[in-house]
Amino acid sequence: MRPYSGEKLCAKCFTKSIEDKARATIANYKMFQHDDKIMVAVSGGKDSTTLLHILEKLEGNFPKSSLCAVTVDEGIKGYRDEALKFAVKNCRKLNVEHTITSFKDLFGVKLDELVKTIQKTRTDETRGLTPCAYCGVLRRRALNVAAREAGVNKLATAHNLDDETQTILLNLLHGDALRIARVNPVLAKNHPKLVQRVKPLCEVPEREIAFYAFQKRIKFQSIPCPYASTALRNDMRIILNRMEEKHSGTKFTLFKSIEKIKPALEKMANETKLRECKSCGEPTVDDICKTCQMLQALDVV
Amino acid sequence: MRPYSGEKLCAKCFTKSIEDKARATIANYKMFQHDDKIMVAVSGGKDSTTLLHILEKLEGNFPKSSLCAVTVDEGIKGYRDEALKFAVKNCRKLNVEHTITSFKDLFGVKLDELVKTIQKTRTDETRGLTPCAYCGVLRRRALNVAAREAGVNKLATAHNLDDETQTILLNLLHGDALRIARVNPVLAKNHPKLVQRVKPLCEVPEREIAFYAFQKRIKFQSIPCPYASTALRNDMRIILNRMEEKHSGTKFTLFKSIEKIKPALEKMANETKLRECKSCGEPTVDDICKTCQMLQALDVV
Repeated sequence: MRPYSGEKLCAKCFTKSIEDKARATIANYKMFQHDDKIMVAVSGGKDSTTLLHILEKLEGNFPKSSLCAVTVDEGIKGYRDEALKFAVKNCRKLNVEHTITSFKDLFGVKLDELVKTIQKTRTDETRGLTPCAYCGVLRRRALNVAAREAGVNKLATAHNLDDETQTILLNLLHGDALRIARVNPVLAKNHPKLVQRVKPLCEVPEREIAFYAFQKRIKFQSIPCPYASTALRNDMRIILNRMEEKHSGTKFTLFKSIEKIKPALEKMANETKLRECKSCGEPTVDDICKTCQMLQALDVV
Repeated sequence: MRPYSGEKLCAKCFTKSIEDKARATIANYKMFQHDDKIMVAVSGGKDSTTLLHILEKLEGNFPKSSLCAVTVDEGIKGYRDEALKFAVKNCRKLNVEHTITSFKDLFGVKLDELVKTIQKTRTDETRGLTPCAYCGVLRRRALNVAAREAGVNKLATAHNLDDETQTILLNLLHGDALRIARVNPVLAKNHPKLVQRVKPLCEVPEREIAFYAFQKRIKFQSIPCPYASTALRNDMRIILNRMEEKHSGTKFTLFKSIEKIKPALEKMANETKLRECKSCGEPTVDDICKTCQMLQALDVV
């Protein structure tokens, strides 16, 4: 049962409702054109594997479009290597072309090594940064490079309603309210080297994705990332779940609440013009991009 | 000790730091002029009684200014009647002129009676509204009328950092993100019948006010309002206190975070022009003001 709508659905109607919701979100935010070349970021976890299955199904209706997948191997032993196997299996099953890229190949260093270096060298620049902070920056870069090199024009990620609302609260509690403007179903493509990112599941709660995957017998990796517990995000998760339990619909209301003020925030953020990083040539707001700044501060490049 | 700054202060330095903080907030937001006629809203609780003491002290330096106090008796048996005694005692002790106004006199009905009516008559308009929703609207009206009739030009309320951050989260989770623009240290005075409201303690955490009151041996009413536990606000209080405990400074960061985006929100909210309520003549955004709407829906006027 869906507490926020009072609906009680059978398994078949439930899975259809999720596909309909994804389709509605895609239409509402004009995420895709009929002839898009789409790449899905597939980690091998529940959300991205589900997104792959749903997009593979929807994409079948558009003969001029194409779909492929990418997995970023951050180098987290006992975690990503396991997840990778699920990504490979699911892509093979759905007959979707699959690219694997890695931190090691792109940046010369695995996340596990990076974390050890972080723990050893605490400088002013690295203080307070969690493994997630590094991983997030590097993963976004890796995905963009992979999408560009594959020649696609859309990169779909599996951010769900829980992810998005957690990010909203995190930005507020970090004092980065303006960053809320970036929590978008469709991310601005404001540099030729950036591939447009879209989030077709951004209005679907995490537990409904889990239930969809269960119903569809989708195989995915279910253990959490060993570094995840260190993140403030976990507190946001707990807070929002507790609120949702007491007042169903909280997450969706928060998401829509921010939608309303986003035009004002975006105007204020004023879409900073991107240029190319002087070190690596990738798009950035500063002289040196965040990826290079992080790697240079850790002295690993 | 203050976890967010690492300061350890003796009792004397601590109380001075609170007075300094209030003074800094007043200066920063240009709350007062040297010749203001100020009315303090004193409920008899910890925050407002402390504000009265602090303002009485600060105001002594400005011979052309004046200070008086007002208490609104909502009509909550066993609660406000007790608090009222503390308000009277503190004003007398500080030699501050004190006005008492009541829901019964102004609206012909006590909150206790209103709550009983709410429970009996659940219409579409009243559904989902807590006693706090009514009390808030009516109390703001009562304070403004009292301030205007006393001929003051500033109305100081004791909203603290906890109140303000709770309101921010509440608005977000209610889907009223634009209302955040109203969470202001100085509230817009956009109608001649409105007295300018200011919040000198809006940057002081609740527990520091409590400690100040304790150190200064200020006598106040400490039992909570019997209707308070019904409010969603209580969940926000718990969430923010839990966050503050784990990550000290959270409340202040959230407060400042919103300050940053407020110019954009205010532009969007576009300061709706106020007019006079067709029923009671008080300033309002609609034809009929919220106070009249509420009372009429309950059929008590």
